[in-house]
Amino acid sequence: MINLTLPDGSVRQYDKGITAMQVARSISEGLTRNVLAAEIDGKVWDASRPIEEDAKIRLLTWNDAEGKATFWHSSAHLMAEALEALYPGVKLGIGPAIETGFYYDVDFGDQPFSSDDFKKIEDKMAELAKTKSEYIRKPVSKADAIEYFTEKGDEYKLDLIKDLPDGSITFYSQGNFTDLCRGPHIPNTSFIKAIKLMSVAGAYWRGDETRKQLTRIYGVTYPKQSELTDYLHFLEEAKKRDHRKLGKELELFAFSEKVGMGLPLWLPKGAALREKLVRFLQKAQEEAGYDQVVTPHIGHKNLYVTSGHYEKYGADSFQPIKTPQEGEEFFLKPMNCPHHCEIYKTKPRSYKDLPVRFAEFGTVYRYEQSGELHGLTRVRGFTQDDAHLFCRPDQVKEEFKKVIDIVLYVFKSLGFADYTAQISLRDPENKTKYIGSEENWLLAEAAIIEAAHEKGLPTVTVFGEAAFYGPKLDFMVKDALGRKWQLGTIQVDYNLPERFELEYTGSDNQKHRPVMIHRAPFGSLERFVAVLIEHCAGNFPLWLTPEQYSILPISEKYEEYAKKLSETLKKHDIRGLIDLRDEKIGRKIRDAEVKKIPYMLIVGEKEAAEGTVSVRKHGEGDLGSMTTEEFKSLIEKEITI
Amino acid sequence: MINLTLPDGSVRQYDKGITAMQVARSISEGLTRNVLAAEIDGKVWDASRPIEEDAKIRLLTWNDAEGKATFWHSSAHLMAEALEALYPGVKLGIGPAIETGFYYDVDFGDQPFSSDDFKKIEDKMAELAKTKSEYIRKPVSKADAIEYFTEKGDEYKLDLIKDLPDGSITFYSQGNFTDLCRGPHIPNTSFIKAIKLMSVAGAYWRGDETRKQLTRIYGVTYPKQSELTDYLHFLEEAKKRDHRKLGKELELFAFSEKVGMGLPLWLPKGAALREKLVRFLQKAQEEAGYDQVVTPHIGHKNLYVTSGHYEKYGADSFQPIKTPQEGEEFFLKPMNCPHHCEIYKTKPRSYKDLPVRFAEFGTVYRYEQSGELHGLTRVRGFTQDDAHLFCRPDQVKEEFKKVIDIVLYVFKSLGFADYTAQISLRDPENKTKYIGSEENWLLAEAAIIEAAHEKGLPTVTVFGEAAFYGPKLDFMVKDALGRKWQLGTIQVDYNLPERFELEYTGSDNQKHRPVMIHRAPFGSLERFVAVLIEHCAGNFPLWLTPEQYSILPISEKYEEYAKKLSETLKKHDIRGLIDLRDEKIGRKIRDAEVKKIPYMLIVGEKEAAEGTVSVRKHGEGDLGSMTTEEFKSLIEKEITI
Repeated sequence: MINLTLPDGSVRQYDKGITAMQVARSISEGLTRNVLAAEIDGKVWDASRPIEEDAKIRLLTWNDAEGKATFWHSSAHLMAEALEALYPGVKLGIGPAIETGFYYDVDFGDQPFSSDDFKKIEDKMAELAKTKSEYIRKPVSKADAIEYFTEKGDEYKLDLIKDLPDGSITFYSQGNFTDLCRGPHIPNTSFIKAIKLMSVAGAYWRGDETRKQLTRIYGVTYPKQSELTDYLHFLEEAKKRDHRKLGKELELFAFSEKVGMGLPLWLPKGAALREKLVRFLQKAQEEAGYDQVVTPHIGHKNLYVTSGHYEKYGADSFQPIKTPQEGEEFFLKPMNCPHHCEIYKTKPRSYKDLPVRFAEFGTVYRYEQSGELHGLTRVRGFTQDDAHLFCRPDQVKEEFKKVIDIVLYVFKSLGFADYTAQISLRDPENKTKYIGSEENWLLAEAAIIEAAHEKGLPTVTVFGEAAFYGPKLDFMVKDALGRKWQLGTIQVDYNLPERFELEYTGSDNQKHRPVMIHRAPFGSLERFVAVLIEHCAGNFPLWLTPEQYSILPISEKYEEYAKKLSETLKKHDIRGLIDLRDEKIGRKIRDAEVKKIPYMLIVGEKEAAEGTVSVRKHGEGDLGSMTTEEFKSLIEKEITI
Repeated sequence: MINLTLPDGSVRQYDKGITAMQVARSISEGLTRNVLAAEIDGKVWDASRPIEEDAKIRLLTWNDAEGKATFWHSSAHLMAEALEALYPGVKLGIGPAIETGFYYDVDFGDQPFSSDDFKKIEDKMAELAKTKSEYIRKPVSKADAIEYFTEKGDEYKLDLIKDLPDGSITFYSQGNFTDLCRGPHIPNTSFIKAIKLMSVAGAYWRGDETRKQLTRIYGVTYPKQSELTDYLHFLEEAKKRDHRKLGKELELFAFSEKVGMGLPLWLPKGAALREKLVRFLQKAQEEAGYDQVVTPHIGHKNLYVTSGHYEKYGADSFQPIKTPQEGEEFFLKPMNCPHHCEIYKTKPRSYKDLPVRFAEFGTVYRYEQSGELHGLTRVRGFTQDDAHLFCRPDQVKEEFKKVIDIVLYVFKSLGFADYTAQISLRDPENKTKYIGSEENWLLAEAAIIEAAHEKGLPTVTVFGEAAFYGPKLDFMVKDALGRKWQLGTIQVDYNLPERFELEYTGSDNQKHRPVMIHRAPFGSLERFVAVLIEHCAGNFPLWLTPEQYSILPISEKYEEYAKKLSETLKKHDIRGLIDLRDEKIGRKIRDAEVKKIPYMLIVGEKEAAEGTVSVRKHGEGDLGSMTTEEFKSLIEKEITI
């Protein structure tokens, strides 16, 4: 008999050699139908693999990341089986699970292949899945493995095997297919109910461009057809909301190869939106006692030697900027904190002066490989809504609470209702790797936990996730498509005050080190705007949207009236433009809809004569005729909701 | 007889060999007393030098820059004469006029010298001046010149002579002193009525630090004692107003060696002031139809190859920033225009869309030698209140007028009442060196002249001062001390639209090049704030000042009342701080005066009981007790004046 410990801590006795599948059956029939694999003492195993010793066991289903990965890995094998059936003599490279599905790298030899073949392969996979073939694990010797793939004539597998130590090699088979694989896999193919091949791309063998290019086929599978349908719908929706697409359509930002990849140009409407966000946060911060500061976008090498960042400036960063005469070296600033530390040092501080809070919408530059750049979410230059709070250890909790207030105010004002906060603390078993006194860590960790609790945040606490220089609180926000984004970090820092030798005079008249808190509710304006665009599909809250209305004159004759109207609205702080193009009204309306202008104000003979406007709301249609005054009330009501 | 043409174009006949002094006498006795030198056919001559041929003549007095320079150059000779009398055997280097006075580099040998000796030298100079010794010009051969200074034992003059071609050498003598000098000089020493030696410094012979260090004595002289008194008063006042000194005292900005020289850190109060200026101009620009844009602080090499700036990036600029992998080169942007051209190009433009006006408070970086950095006026990074207007040729005049409106609004709002505008046009005799069509130049030059005229600007027109790429209008502002600063430039540019191939579709459905106008009313925020500080001696207009009041509680007991008061004022958008330090009220008042806080609100028992404040105005003193409401009205009245 062996003892298996379940995640809830309960221990059950089983016969030696029992499988996770059998354990599931001993618990419930439902679980049996859903178990895909199991975590045995921290390692993911086949649900059908016999357990020979006492162990901790966790049964894995579709709801676990490891369960999904196993499912998709098995789906790759299923696709390989289908490919061998359809394309005899096909050779196979590697076929892993990825974040959303799986792929397999395939050498079709002389056989033609294109995405037109997807349907045929999907059908074959579905046919094979229905056979309910078990995935069977079999340890093999290196010699046997080499013999098998030599006979099969698959040089890729042979290339993989040569690097593996003897005794570590396993094969997995299902149906007529056998693969070199360390596993684990799902119990049998019948779990795979819904199949979709997504795309095809070229991939060099082992990523080496001097070697052969294989065909990489991406696919995704689900245990239910409805889940696949939902996923495909999600993809379509995500594509529609892609901030790169909407950013272009709404004329918010652009990139120029001449200016440089990953360096956004904020167009008038984007810059207006950005400015609104800046002022919105500036106001909140001013009320919370922040002081704005402005610092340069470069810093002398010495600054980063002091901060410790210099050591990180290796081969992977923007290289230094040299001065021609003095031989000085400057760096594009990758963060604002060192500059703010120098501001802290411009005068002596007393315990009575603290906390001081320096805020800056500081643009920083960080090198990213050109291939990794992505719209506004992965850029080479971005503006952080940065602030650094310098406080006494006894003020950490209060400061955290105030920062949480600001973060929640941001989320609420911008329509992010679903969030959790992750509290990252020290690894309690390895406290030596952290800088700062035990007392200050205890104070700060307690302060963060209490602050989060008192503010009623839904939290997850993770031990060992604190930075070496302090504990932190991160916000994870779910967008309208259910995707999670990390927005807003609050981070305690004991390191920089030490390195910059920051001080304040305590009530005891002695010198003390202040605690430093980094925080950025948006994170960066670029990333936040990208997330916001995708979250609201470009339909920004009315208070934020760059163009609240567009006046659409039916013909040139009503341009004068349109201009008068525009000036009246401007006086009431309602902003928008006039569409003066020589286009039909239908076209003007369609274009305004594409641009997601919330209100279209159509003016023609009747409106000009009566001093009214015909109002059309984006996505809703005609609201009828109203006076300027009525329209103004409508807008103001919507903004204050 | 010869013909001399006066500046008014009139021609007078004189005997050959007449001197400028005699010409002056033939005109008026007053002029005779004031003439210091003369410009003969474009060259400055002694007033006593015989004129042998027909020439254009301009008599130079103290009111001419060349007259002043001659006066100070002669004063350097006078000082040298005094030094030879007081320090026998002294050797002399060079002794030129400079912008404000003159200096002479002196080798005192073993004789001790310090600024304590100034009085003695000044007295000697005054004594020698009264002798009314004439400055006498004498051409000498190189051999004679060498013989003279060999005998005298002055190796410095010998070093100078060796580089001079024979036939070009002249000596000037007055009293017992003879110098190697190309002149010109004033008629005699009696013109020099007021003398002040200013400072002493070390200077290597010929600026070469491997050669001997001489003693450089700086001095200034005037034709009237009252003018010297005024000048010394001006210097004292300028020192008090020095923006570097006030910037520190008022905690507006700071520099840190670690961040890097010439890279200002804007402290909270300075950043608040800066932000006020930004918003003030943003609002004016928004009303004038400008669109804000935001662009990165670096640009790819290709951007500057296109703009033509790359050629200028030589040994004297910040060196390129390389990416580690792609081998790309970026530059810190030295100006915003190339980025704005790329924004213009993000979509097709029609004649109906123009003008488009892109504004950005864009921070740019330009290398300056460390020795040339000076407070906020000479920095390595600064933020331009930049905008680029893209318009049709027929819109240039209207756009200029609108920009002039903004510039004048800035001047008026910030208390600069005294300004002139310089119109810089082509050199009419050399039109080939300019880019752009003749027609467009004529249109633009006429547009600028007319715009300036219609706006009633006091103007100076200078031919040949236009840039090769377009004509411009510069504003010269006089500050409270009478110093002139160039603030605000409006510049037409035909070059960048060509280089970036900017286009719009005209009403003729053909492609055309837009005209580009660069403009910056402040110039840069750094330089403008420096000028503003010195202009108003740190007493900023109330609407702009970062701290409008400081509440000074008499003791800790009244802190609560002070806080309540502060909150009430904040609600009315009146900003200030509370002085919570544990200091006597007298000290708090003194410190607030030093910080130039416009209003001090003293609160103690009486005020807390009655709900009032005792108001003290900076530089004026006690205004008595008043209610919060009364104080609020006082402030609001002052702001709207």
